[in-house]
Amino acid sequence: MTAVITAFDWVPPFARGQVRDLRVRWALEEAGQPYDVRYLAQGEQKADGHRALQPFGQVPTYEEDGLVLFESGAIVWHIAERHPGTLLPEDTAARARAIEWMFAALNSVEPPLMDRSIATIFERDRPWSAPRLPAIEQRATARLADLSQRLGERTWLDGEAFTAGDLLMISVLRIAAGSGLVEAHPNLAAYVARGEARPAFGRALAAQLAGFTGEPPAAWTQRKERAA
Amino acid sequence: MTAVITAFDWVPPFARGQVRDLRVRWALEEAGQPYDVRYLAQGEQKADGHRALQPFGQVPTYEEDGLVLFESGAIVWHIAERHPGTLLPEDTAARARAIEWMFAALNSVEPPLMDRSIATIFERDRPWSAPRLPAIEQRATARLADLSQRLGERTWLDGEAFTAGDLLMISVLRIAAGSGLVEAHPNLAAYVARGEARPAFGRALAAQLAGFTGEPPAAWTQRKERAA
Ligand SMILES: N[C@@H](CCC(=O)N[C@@H](CS)C(=O)NCC(=O)O)C(=O)O
Ligand SMILES: N[C@@H](CCC(=O)N[C@@H](CS)C(=O)NCC(=O)O)C(=O)O
Repeated sequence: MTAVITAFDWVPPFARGQVRDLRVRWALEEAGQPYDVRYLAQGEQKADGHRALQPFGQVPTYEEDGLVLFESGAIVWHIAERHPGTLLPEDTAARARAIEWMFAALNSVEPPLMDRSIATIFERDRPWSAPRLPAIEQRATARLADLSQRLGERTWLDGEAFTAGDLLMISVLRIAAGSGLVEAHPNLAAYVARGEARPAFGRALAAQLAGFTGEPPAAWTQRKERAA
Repeated sequence: MTAVITAFDWVPPFARGQVRDLRVRWALEEAGQPYDVRYLAQGEQKADGHRALQPFGQVPTYEEDGLVLFESGAIVWHIAERHPGTLLPEDTAARARAIEWMFAALNSVEPPLMDRSIATIFERDRPWSAPRLPAIEQRATARLADLSQRLGERTWLDGEAFTAGDLLMISVLRIAAGSGLVEAHPNLAAYVARGEARPAFGRALAAQLAGFTGEPPAAWTQRKERAA
């Protein structure tokens, strides 16, 4: 049975190409697997029907032969597991290290970068955001400097083989794209570019962007009108 | 060969019983595996020697027969994988769901709780922390309400079997212990208590606490003297 994922039919411009179903689409493309998408209108993710699949009312989810999964990290792991040799190496130690980078992406690098997005996007107008930004940037900068140091001249995090760890790390680094934080490290910027140049990434991104065929919710339209 | 993990020989009182080597000790205890600990003095984690094992200069790490791992999530996963039937179910779908909860703990629940710890501990004296606290607590409260809703009357997150997903979720919920956020949901508080009542958890916690035999760094002592 073809797997079914969930994604949004509309997100604001800043989020296009960033919604987390992209990670799952990318993994499926790397594994050469077709998939179907069930699109949700904004707001629908918080309804009981979707919460039965995703307790926090978010996307993505993944359904396949009665198995229901949420968490993009776990879904990418599951796809990798189902298609040996595409996203996780067969060698036991190399496999453990690839999984280490999956957790590093989601637990060590994503939190400081999301913290910055909260301050510069979601809470931009709150009085605490501007004064707090230097502390946020200091944490993010330190984390990325460490990552750059470890990556060094390698092609991918563990050497010559692209893994699910790279897929998630590159997805996470893209959160900060254009902020200068990644660009400060030429090897990190080149690493992200190498990931984005993969045909599977290109197909996944195009598919996500093509899915935004819905209408903005009323609250968004009203906010835009007030701002104009 | 016995695995070797790293831990600190001293941390401030608020961090005792919270340092992330606890998650690894707990997993090893659940699997019935002995282990050795190499203790680091505060500061040593940022030296090149340790960074060769942990690029971000943190604990824990895990070494076993030439395999070196960091990220508590990945180490717990590796221990579970090496000891089938202790922390990850054998059934494929149940296993995928246990891994889903590992990622949910570290990527959906830990970030809002750590955000709160940053504001109430590490950045407590910064001018932005107090005004920002309501927004932080709102995010954490919403996440925990969703988790409580999903847990319902279950013993563990996926039903009757304790998994690595519970081990990490309970470890993460302990970050907010005493804040009232977890206690607001009797089923979550009871879930944490069930985890803490496991003999393996008790042994892991006692071992972490027994390891704090070092001296506070000079900066800590000076700060205390200034405050007195
Ligand atoms: N840890 C989750 C995070 C999922 C997440 O943040 N989803 C966002 C889109 S990228 C979402 O659905 N936001 C809408 C909402 O929270 O209402 C994962 O990796 O799957
Ligand atoms: N994502 C990492 C986080 C590790 C971490 O935060 N370690 C803390 C102790 S709980 C640490 O070593 N802090 C000292 C430092 O950053 O200098 C993991 O789960 O292993």
